[in-house]
Amino acid sequence: MTRVVAGIDIGGTNTKISLVDESGNVISKTVLATLNYPEAKIFAEAAVEEIDKLLLGARINGRVAGVGIGAPNGNYFKGTIEFAPNLKWKGVIPMTKLFEDSLHAPTIITNDAKAAALGEMYFGAARELTDFIYITLGTGLGSGFVVNRKLVYGHDGFAGEFGHTIMIPHGRLCGCGRRGCLEQYCSATGIVKTYLELIKNSDAEGYNNLEISKIDSAHIYERALSGDEDAFYAFNYTGEMLGLALANAVVVTSPQAIFLFGGVAAAGELIFNPTIMSFEKNLMPIYRNKVKILPSGLPENDCAILGAASLIWDQLSN
Amino acid sequence: MTRVVAGIDIGGTNTKISLVDESGNVISKTVLATLNYPEAKIFAEAAVEEIDKLLLGARINGRVAGVGIGAPNGNYFKGTIEFAPNLKWKGVIPMTKLFEDSLHAPTIITNDAKAAALGEMYFGAARELTDFIYITLGTGLGSGFVVNRKLVYGHDGFAGEFGHTIMIPHGRLCGCGRRGCLEQYCSATGIVKTYLELIKNSDAEGYNNLEISKIDSAHIYERALSGDEDAFYAFNYTGEMLGLALANAVVVTSPQAIFLFGGVAAAGELIFNPTIMSFEKNLMPIYRNKVKILPSGLPENDCAILGAASLIWDQLSN
Repeated sequence: MTRVVAGIDIGGTNTKISLVDESGNVISKTVLATLNYPEAKIFAEAAVEEIDKLLLGARINGRVAGVGIGAPNGNYFKGTIEFAPNLKWKGVIPMTKLFEDSLHAPTIITNDAKAAALGEMYFGAARELTDFIYITLGTGLGSGFVVNRKLVYGHDGFAGEFGHTIMIPHGRLCGCGRRGCLEQYCSATGIVKTYLELIKNSDAEGYNNLEISKIDSAHIYERALSGDEDAFYAFNYTGEMLGLALANAVVVTSPQAIFLFGGVAAAGELIFNPTIMSFEKNLMPIYRNKVKILPSGLPENDCAILGAASLIWDQLSN
Repeated sequence: MTRVVAGIDIGGTNTKISLVDESGNVISKTVLATLNYPEAKIFAEAAVEEIDKLLLGARINGRVAGVGIGAPNGNYFKGTIEFAPNLKWKGVIPMTKLFEDSLHAPTIITNDAKAAALGEMYFGAARELTDFIYITLGTGLGSGFVVNRKLVYGHDGFAGEFGHTIMIPHGRLCGCGRRGCLEQYCSATGIVKTYLELIKNSDAEGYNNLEISKIDSAHIYERALSGDEDAFYAFNYTGEMLGLALANAVVVTSPQAIFLFGGVAAAGELIFNPTIMSFEKNLMPIYRNKVKILPSGLPENDCAILGAASLIWDQLSN
């Protein structure tokens, strides 16, 4: 009998639900509209129903060996989702308990970036690595630190908030209430802020106010490719800051590699080149030319569910 | 029969050699003048002889269960001391091999700050903690990160170089060849630099050149206690920078506590107060009022040898 686990990626709009085997094959998957479930309990029950349907569809008798969940603000130790700004459920949601009440299989949750890091370790480009850092450059900057094949959770599950490293005291205001956090510069949101500052100082090249309000990181990427210097410089500035922050992270864990994943990382050389240049320049000499900065080795669409599934495989292997 | 290990702390001038039991009792100890041994091999043989003498003196039959060594630039994985600027032995010294050739007991080496962190975990104020950061404020700034009761070595043993976090790009020149490293501000050396900058801008209060060349951190401490505002501010500035750096470290490992140890930490409130104030101010809200900044719980004189000894107890317990 094939042993499978459920890998679930909870997002603000949609939730991906999948069955994943021990080799990281996605056996089947489906999508649930998170927004349709104002109550977390009903959501968990619906998700469990979908898991059953997937098992049936895949002709798998028996149950899943466990449920792994990646979610914004997911807390590994408490099994909760806590005060996630992009989800409808407010306050502290006991998500693993809701699943376990309904499915009777061990359920583990963590935040999406930590889950992705674990997915990379089990099924992606970090299979042979012992120590690495995983950075997701999306709306914010998420991170997962792996030390000696273990994810760093911290004593309370709140480790890996690397996006909230203060880079510029008195810098840009951050959602966390402080100023100058890394994710205000190095993220899709950050690059838009940088670009808007840049075009305000140049002649804004004919943008009208409506157009300006619609500028997103994908737009800046297109502009950079078509020769817009401000757009190109926005990526450069982002990479320069990210390279310095990563060089400072290396002195803590001395990793073999750092992975960049997510929307901004998909810009490829535009972001990797300035990041690597700044990284090597700022790196303490003993680490130079030793720490690789790499793209994820996982298919972008399956990265989150593979990461979530690996939470269970990780526990079963320990 | 009492099981004992040898705990050795190699310093530029002197090497402390001790016998330590499983409860962290220092059974006996002695000192070897490191400077008298231009050759590392002869040094290791002399140290092994001292261990034998200590065993005899303590009426212990049999051998030590192992030898733990804390040394500047000690590399855990390779068993080497590499390019230590404060030691006479140049290049790469295979120190554990030299001991094992002579003593036939397992020998482990790491740098002094990492050893001290482990000592704190086994015998000091971190006995009940799972995750903490250990900072030594001496000539430089050393560090040891403990994650889930394990010291973070990194894949190559070079983790924990927190003193080389770049705090001020284009700041003070550091021995590592870059600029603005934390240890250029937060260490005995750093506080002297800060104080000298401050008195240059004030009227230097009657220091002559000879006196200025003799200013060390102990002198600044005395001055601060006797009301010298520049000296007081030098500690404040040091604490402010250290607090920010530590707040940034917390987002990586989410520890329960941070220990400050070494010469500058011995200044007590003068350094702890501004550090804690800046730390709490700069801390991401989810961590506030949760992470303690504490002095070491070990006797200052025995901290290094207890740390070195705990390298062996740590290995035997795993």
